Amino acid sequence: MLHNDFYTPDKQGPYETASVGRLELEEGGVIEDCWLAYATAGELNADRSNAILIPTWYSGTHSAWFENYIGEDHALDPSRYFIICVNQIGNGLSVSPANTDDPSIAMSKFPHVRIGDDVVAQERLLREKFGIEELFAVVGGSMGAQQTYEWIVRFPDKVRRAAPVAGTARNTPHDFLFTRTLNEAILSDPGYNGGEYTSHTDVADGLRRQSHLWAVMGLSTEWWKQEAWRGLGLDSVDAVIDDFLDPLFASMDPGTLLNNAWKWQRGDVSRHTGGDLAAALGRVTAKTFVMPISEDMFFPVRDCAEEQKLIPGSELRVIDDIAGHLGLFNLSPGYIPQIDANLRELFDAEV
Amino acid sequence: MLHNDFYTPDKQGPYETASVGRLELEEGGVIEDCWLAYATAGELNADRSNAILIPTWYSGTHSAWFENYIGEDHALDPSRYFIICVNQIGNGLSVSPANTDDPSIAMSKFPHVRIGDDVVAQERLLREKFGIEELFAVVGGSMGAQQTYEWIVRFPDKVRRAAPVAGTARNTPHDFLFTRTLNEAILSDPGYNGGEYTSHTDVADGLRRQSHLWAVMGLSTEWWKQEAWRGLGLDSVDAVIDDFLDPLFASMDPGTLLNNAWKWQRGDVSRHTGGDLAAALGRVTAKTFVMPISEDMFFPVRDCAEEQKLIPGSELRVIDDIAGHLGLFNLSPGYIPQIDANLRELFDAEV
Repeated sequence: MLHNDFYTPDKQGPYETASVGRLELEEGGVIEDCWLAYATAGELNADRSNAILIPTWYSGTHSAWFENYIGEDHALDPSRYFIICVNQIGNGLSVSPANTDDPSIAMSKFPHVRIGDDVVAQERLLREKFGIEELFAVVGGSMGAQQTYEWIVRFPDKVRRAAPVAGTARNTPHDFLFTRTLNEAILSDPGYNGGEYTSHTDVADGLRRQSHLWAVMGLSTEWWKQEAWRGLGLDSVDAVIDDFLDPLFASMDPGTLLNNAWKWQRGDVSRHTGGDLAAALGRVTAKTFVMPISEDMFFPVRDCAEEQKLIPGSELRVIDDIAGHLGLFNLSPGYIPQIDANLRELFDAEV
Repeated sequence: MLHNDFYTPDKQGPYETASVGRLELEEGGVIEDCWLAYATAGELNADRSNAILIPTWYSGTHSAWFENYIGEDHALDPSRYFIICVNQIGNGLSVSPANTDDPSIAMSKFPHVRIGDDVVAQERLLREKFGIEELFAVVGGSMGAQQTYEWIVRFPDKVRRAAPVAGTARNTPHDFLFTRTLNEAILSDPGYNGGEYTSHTDVADGLRRQSHLWAVMGLSTEWWKQEAWRGLGLDSVDAVIDDFLDPLFASMDPGTLLNNAWKWQRGDVSRHTGGDLAAALGRVTAKTFVMPISEDMFFPVRDCAEEQKLIPGSELRVIDDIAGHLGLFNLSPGYIPQIDANLRELFDAEV
């Protein structure tokens, strides 16, 4: 096990852990003791009908949701809902390459995990730990959107509302290639050492190169052109890189990023229907708002809109934000109000 | 000097070279014997009024133009025009890090060159070698568009028509950051050895990583999604990478790419006007068609359109092509007909 300050309650806010036991993985590996890190807000009501699940995105944890999306002034209102944010497997807080004491899955031995494995583990956690059989809603961004789609296709009877933000139900070829460049930034660093590095700082160069890719693909041409970084209290392009993105990515665990990227690359609900995406999305009974971000460069609106058309009763709600994909981090003043307005409408919808 | 088959007439088609003598560079360096590689088609008419200059793009040479754009069935018709395609400084055919026998500028010692240095050298070549004082037109794509803009701002009286395709007059911050990732792909390869590699094959890993970035940014999400590669006779995503892009970039000289990238990152006609882009573009007297490609991810239409509005009498002619920036390589059947139609109209315009 490697120590990394980034993956601590001090940095990520408080959370709990619970095991869902042995998890046999779609790709054939197994996690003997699959424990998940999660954080909650609000109270589960008597009939357990007010639970909202939030799965997490690549590189992130529950903290981004608690810092930006959850509160009594938001749609994700703990005075009304029981909100549970579950960290995805391998994200550095749930069981992950660098935080497990199980030598059979430590570091380079950590198995390939699929989006479906996370959803199976989450379903168990909700049922076994909280007695939740049905979710009021699932809300997730990016890889969290992939998990949201997986939920409503795999367990159509268990989800009443869904809001996949800035993500797709079936990953695109372009997105796969983009993610490969993220991986190569790390894999090309000799410090990565085949996954047997002794500290994430061994891979500082690779993590910095990955950060630079995020600067290009995570934001948008217009965000940079309009110098929207001024709104974040930064004073130059260099400051965005040197004081914001580079330190953020340099803090992370390389194995976590690679494992989650493998999962991201293969998100695909049509695995349930022999590759037929229309059939998979046609199963959905949850009221679904598909919420792409207008300037997203790798989950572009048109990819999300094509999928939305395949989901019965769904609506396309484009979030207008020049921050692009990283708009998920609440970079623009207009972002959260749009999220809240759409989620409020979704949560108020009769289903 | 390093031998590299890629930079030979056998691979690039025939060309000639001529020296424009000592070139003092904007950044302070000097190339004592600045020789340019160029190829021509057609005949210069008696009053030397039918010359069309084509500068080259990043990673490319004159060959892409001769293979795809020049011919009696094209607007760039050698039966009507004297067409001269000049390879940019440092591109591997004109004087470059790996092909010079001047030890003061060889390999890692090659000086920083700016777009303006190329245009100054080209103007000398045209005047001294061919007696050309005025150009019928300048046509260029990508970095060739940067040089086209530089021509019409620096020498407004010397150019009658201009067609910058898929490029900008002032490079954007996003574009700078994208280019940095291209550079880092090479610089992170230990084989690069501070620019003192013994063969471009020493840097094969870095060149392959750069190729993978082009797969993401050079094409478009839609090109990949629609499997437009089938139109190139390729049968899979892997074939696009393994059989097309990787071998192409693996053939190139790393020092050439880095030197040209430095130039690309700093293209800016407003250097002539103290940073005032409107003043710089306001100088233009050439009839100008600004021709962005609809799906270009790093020279997006809106960036080109903003500049077009600043050019007196200019017109915006968007080339519709899902291939994005690499559409320049004539990847889509509809691309060249659009280029030809716009260039014919431009060439027929009274100016």
